[in-house]
Amino acid sequence: MKALQYRTVGAAPEVVTVPDPEPGPGQVLLKVTAAGVCHSDIAVMSWPAEGFPYELPLTLGHEGVGTVAALGAGVTGLKEGDPVAVYGPWGCGTCANCAQGKENYCLRAAELGINPPGLGSPGSMAEYMIVDDPRHLVPIDGLDPVATVPLTDAGLTPYHAIKRSLPKLVPGSTAVVIGTGGLGHVAIQLLRAMTAARVIALDVSEDKLALARTVGAHEAILSDAEAAAKVRELTGGRGAEAVFDFVGVQPTVETAGAVAAVEGDVTIVGIGGGSLPVGFGKTAFEVNVTAPYWGSRGELIEVLDLARAGAVSVHTETYSLDDAPKAYERLHDGKINGRAVILPNG
Amino acid sequence: MKALQYRTVGAAPEVVTVPDPEPGPGQVLLKVTAAGVCHSDIAVMSWPAEGFPYELPLTLGHEGVGTVAALGAGVTGLKEGDPVAVYGPWGCGTCANCAQGKENYCLRAAELGINPPGLGSPGSMAEYMIVDDPRHLVPIDGLDPVATVPLTDAGLTPYHAIKRSLPKLVPGSTAVVIGTGGLGHVAIQLLRAMTAARVIALDVSEDKLALARTVGAHEAILSDAEAAAKVRELTGGRGAEAVFDFVGVQPTVETAGAVAAVEGDVTIVGIGGGSLPVGFGKTAFEVNVTAPYWGSRGELIEVLDLARAGAVSVHTETYSLDDAPKAYERLHDGKINGRAVILPNG
Amino acid sequence: MKALQYRTVGAAPEVVTVPDPEPGPGQVLLKVTAAGVCHSDIAVMSWPAEGFPYELPLTLGHEGVGTVAALGAGVTGLKEGDPVAVYGPWGCGTCANCAQGKENYCLRAAELGINPPGLGSPGSMAEYMIVDDPRHLVPIDGLDPVATVPLTDAGLTPYHAIKRSLPKLVPGSTAVVIGTGGLGHVAIQLLRAMTAARVIALDVSEDKLALARTVGAHEAILSDAEAAAKVRELTGGRGAEAVFDFVGVQPTVETAGAVAAVEGDVTIVGIGGGSLPVGFGKTAFEVNVTAPYWGSRGELIEVLDLARAGAVSVHTETYSLDDAPKAYERLHDGKINGRAVILPNG
Amino acid sequence: MKALQYRTVGAAPEVVTVPDPEPGPGQVLLKVTAAGVCHSDIAVMSWPAEGFPYELPLTLGHEGVGTVAALGAGVTGLKEGDPVAVYGPWGCGTCANCAQGKENYCLRAAELGINPPGLGSPGSMAEYMIVDDPRHLVPIDGLDPVATVPLTDAGLTPYHAIKRSLPKLVPGSTAVVIGTGGLGHVAIQLLRAMTAARVIALDVSEDKLALARTVGAHEAILSDAEAAAKVRELTGGRGAEAVFDFVGVQPTVETAGAVAAVEGDVTIVGIGGGSLPVGFGKTAFEVNVTAPYWGSRGELIEVLDLARAGAVSVHTETYSLDDAPKAYERLHDGKINGRAVILPNG
Repeated sequence: MKALQYRTVGAAPEVVTVPDPEPGPGQVLLKVTAAGVCHSDIAVMSWPAEGFPYELPLTLGHEGVGTVAALGAGVTGLKEGDPVAVYGPWGCGTCANCAQGKENYCLRAAELGINPPGLGSPGSMAEYMIVDDPRHLVPIDGLDPVATVPLTDAGLTPYHAIKRSLPKLVPGSTAVVIGTGGLGHVAIQLLRAMTAARVIALDVSEDKLALARTVGAHEAILSDAEAAAKVRELTGGRGAEAVFDFVGVQPTVETAGAVAAVEGDVTIVGIGGGSLPVGFGKTAFEVNVTAPYWGSRGELIEVLDLARAGAVSVHTETYSLDDAPKAYERLHDGKINGRAVILPNG
Repeated sequence: MKALQYRTVGAAPEVVTVPDPEPGPGQVLLKVTAAGVCHSDIAVMSWPAEGFPYELPLTLGHEGVGTVAALGAGVTGLKEGDPVAVYGPWGCGTCANCAQGKENYCLRAAELGINPPGLGSPGSMAEYMIVDDPRHLVPIDGLDPVATVPLTDAGLTPYHAIKRSLPKLVPGSTAVVIGTGGLGHVAIQLLRAMTAARVIALDVSEDKLALARTVGAHEAILSDAEAAAKVRELTGGRGAEAVFDFVGVQPTVETAGAVAAVEGDVTIVGIGGGSLPVGFGKTAFEVNVTAPYWGSRGELIEVLDLARAGAVSVHTETYSLDDAPKAYERLHDGKINGRAVILPNG
Repeated sequence: MKALQYRTVGAAPEVVTVPDPEPGPGQVLLKVTAAGVCHSDIAVMSWPAEGFPYELPLTLGHEGVGTVAALGAGVTGLKEGDPVAVYGPWGCGTCANCAQGKENYCLRAAELGINPPGLGSPGSMAEYMIVDDPRHLVPIDGLDPVATVPLTDAGLTPYHAIKRSLPKLVPGSTAVVIGTGGLGHVAIQLLRAMTAARVIALDVSEDKLALARTVGAHEAILSDAEAAAKVRELTGGRGAEAVFDFVGVQPTVETAGAVAAVEGDVTIVGIGGGSLPVGFGKTAFEVNVTAPYWGSRGELIEVLDLARAGAVSVHTETYSLDDAPKAYERLHDGKINGRAVILPNG
Repeated sequence: MKALQYRTVGAAPEVVTVPDPEPGPGQVLLKVTAAGVCHSDIAVMSWPAEGFPYELPLTLGHEGVGTVAALGAGVTGLKEGDPVAVYGPWGCGTCANCAQGKENYCLRAAELGINPPGLGSPGSMAEYMIVDDPRHLVPIDGLDPVATVPLTDAGLTPYHAIKRSLPKLVPGSTAVVIGTGGLGHVAIQLLRAMTAARVIALDVSEDKLALARTVGAHEAILSDAEAAAKVRELTGGRGAEAVFDFVGVQPTVETAGAVAAVEGDVTIVGIGGGSLPVGFGKTAFEVNVTAPYWGSRGELIEVLDLARAGAVSVHTETYSLDDAPKAYERLHDGKINGRAVILPNG
């Protein structure tokens, strides 16, 4: 079969032919319908050879949707042809965190050498992929594969971030979304669907601010040196009960800290390398600051249910598997509008 | 001043002239702008003389909005002319529950003889009323008094009921609202504004079901012997994660129990005298059943913030104080469309 | 191998010889070290033939501890000789509840024909048992198998019940435990280890009350018609913030309802057939009543961690597999002191 | 009456004679039984004249216990002679935070010029003090005033910090307490009373570590460059689910960040000026970092209930009001063992 592989550190990914995979006992073979192209792949491909954490060649793709093509021995509860989405952050399945479905925080993954598809294990950018266990699959009945595949990461990650702040997003509260691109414009939709909070969007681009308004932001303002003061003004001096930073560079995390209300949450999702110093007097009292990673199995089910209710949609551009390298180039150059999706069997 | 009083057990309430009240130290005098007419007043007026809990005559009205007319000695943080809503379930202010603003569950109210306005203390159906403490007032700046006054009970009560179930009302979940009149049609709006749950409304009247759809119910079905089966069908057999019964008669509480999903919440708000037996095998596993009362101070602030955001509205009919007895008659006869509001200074 | 089977409805269980089981793909073969004898087995064996839910013969035992004897194809993360406890309430592993480890509330178990060991699937009362998936095993390193095996049900069930009430069991609160036998005397220990609540135990037997005091109850009083009044008196009229009824007959659930404080939790764990009517005015305001079942995977891990910390212990009597029928007889006759444990390879 | 006042920036506090205070409407006059000496007073007295936030002279003392000496007009629910503790972080009583008893996070205190006693308002280091509202008093019946007074700050502050982490402090979890002096040694007791977590104490002094073990720490280790590695080792590599830093200097906040487990809480209570940078990759995934302030009204009630249950005690040294300046000197010089308490009427 054909697969998009990252083969040499520093080189572009290539479409190559690899042996057709076969599911071992307990595994599931998927015929891949859609595979999402993500910024973090580009980050991975920028890492130096020394200390590179994964074995090469590596089939890319940590967002995947497909149909069940074959069941390994002993697999039950699924049948050939079932359309499913892949839960990506694979864990051991049995530790204290995995036992609650929080495989993104598996306590034994490193020790046992478990890696997500596309981030160590063979990923979704191939005609077929192996999923290690049926528990890593969520039925997508009724959903479009292309529209759904970005939700497994670009939907699940903001969903997880927002879920921790729901108790604070009561009526009368304010949520600030910094960076209204891929994850941020999904976050705005999630906030509108799940809370009565007022949503203020910040971005450096007027185009993105326009998109933010379209998908439901009550206010959309330029992310500059005045932004924090504007948010304070819009909230009568109180600030925001929850701030989600999908950029994560130093200026945005500082804005995030500056606009957080007493007891507010600051969630740094973007991996831009910034960090917010927390200590007495550095922010309003009891501002909670954290940097989470992806989401849980139960949360992915909820995200897909939200999509089924029509409450969240992602703008996508589709590419054939042969054109996948081009999609990465365009993403790298900032030319993708929304999310690029590869159709390996398209 | 004029006041509407319940003077004799069994008789209709009358408009009478009473001395103008003056605020004592720590109290606030309100000029009443709007006072809500509530079914529970009718319940009170149906109780027998023996064991009647309040002293007569009693000025009615436990829903009140007004402007500050005078401050008792020592009151700060308010000024004459401030428009405010009255938090009705007065408590001692210092016990373990009051210390969290849950004065509806004051541990010492009975012992100290503290009663809500209109339910023991002189109520809002008068030109002026005394509020015992400024903490029982919430600013309503920007809100219309007539539209706001029903929210202090008919809004706060369903809000409190819904808030306990929010963690269960995740995307993909279902909320069932039984009885879509005064409180129920507010509940539907609250659920739509605060959750991504699917809302199924049940009522015996096609008119009310039409209203339910108008205010946001995804499904509206007749509340009859088939209703539970229909809800099960609409939810793929799973049932509802939260059920709110605003009627509370035996058939509705039984429907509530029958449609609740595993770990679902059943909240019986209606005081129709029904009760749901809970025990192993009586409902789905770990269905939680409760019957709450009114809401907390913090919750009233949130309800008014929700109204300010335009997320909840109540249909109202207004009456002068002189016509207040007629409003009660019409309510008793089921002729009020939405909520009747008295304008004591109108 | 030898196994204890329930073979004929109405007859006593028998020790028989059955073929040695072999683990299929994804399964694990355990050499059983300890198997717990439970009241619910006796309940099962009292059911009539008509409508009996399980296929016969049925190897009993839903509490099991053993060592890994063989791994089915594809199983990783475990090795031969590992000492493990069995999580009993097996589910599908992938539905919205199982994705959070709440397999006790699996949404698809009935549809897929999944049954717990000893309650439909072959159980732990045999020399060897098959566990369907490694996720149903929790390592018990450092724990004694005999002391541990009752914790998988008699520990997990009260733990789950208590965990829901932890937010209410603040300092100054009261927890009432009704029935201080197998589950109840564990519950008292859990409450003492995990909360600062005052624990009041109720039982009809003075011996059990003495045990209750020994394991940590602050007060132990006879469960009779005066009990509710005594609890009210001991709590200054306030009642208990959480009540756990491990008996569940009509008089105990009524006592439970009568002693619950405003906003208190009543958890009916015992399957004695009683039920508590919930509705406005039937209990204190917003008492929450529920009847849960067993517990989650994550909770079992926590229970075993608690045992490892020395915070919970169960009195046990051990029996060989050949004497297992006698253990059931003695349990039926109320002669077991604590919990009976079978040693199938002892 | 006599009072201990801070009169000139930079000078030592002095015992002076001031007019006897009289309670205005809504206020309460206390005869002070015990007043706590706190490090933060010393911090206040180290601030420069420029920008000094409070009017001088200032009667010190933000920890106070007394008996009701007189009630201002309109005060109910209390009577002369009642022994009470003062809730110190006074707020407006009506904003969204105060409505939940979180007056420590009042949204209007600055705007309205409301200050805690001893930190702007006249404090407890005087024969009598004015409490602005009865809601700021908690009955201490059954408690010793001297043992109780430090709990209003040195007890309430760690209690509030711990309460936010209770859901994470499940059996099998670890709590780390850095700095086992005044607040820290109370924190250890609170953790032992309210959770089943394993408690690891860190301090730079062997004496303090000995105290930590005496009050219940499972492990007590030197707070040095190896400390983080030792905590990791003691927790099998996992780290601590909650870390409480009562020192808050740069080395301790860095240790706190280094030992926090995935999803762990880091609470910086000490005002040592340190700050922990939070961002992707800076700590384990989703470590939550915050710096709270004091606690809520409801929490103070719970702390006193915990003391009543015998679960927390503070070592105290007592001084007469005349000797109060000496107590501050000794505290400044690090010579106080536990907490110094002034007896203004002793």
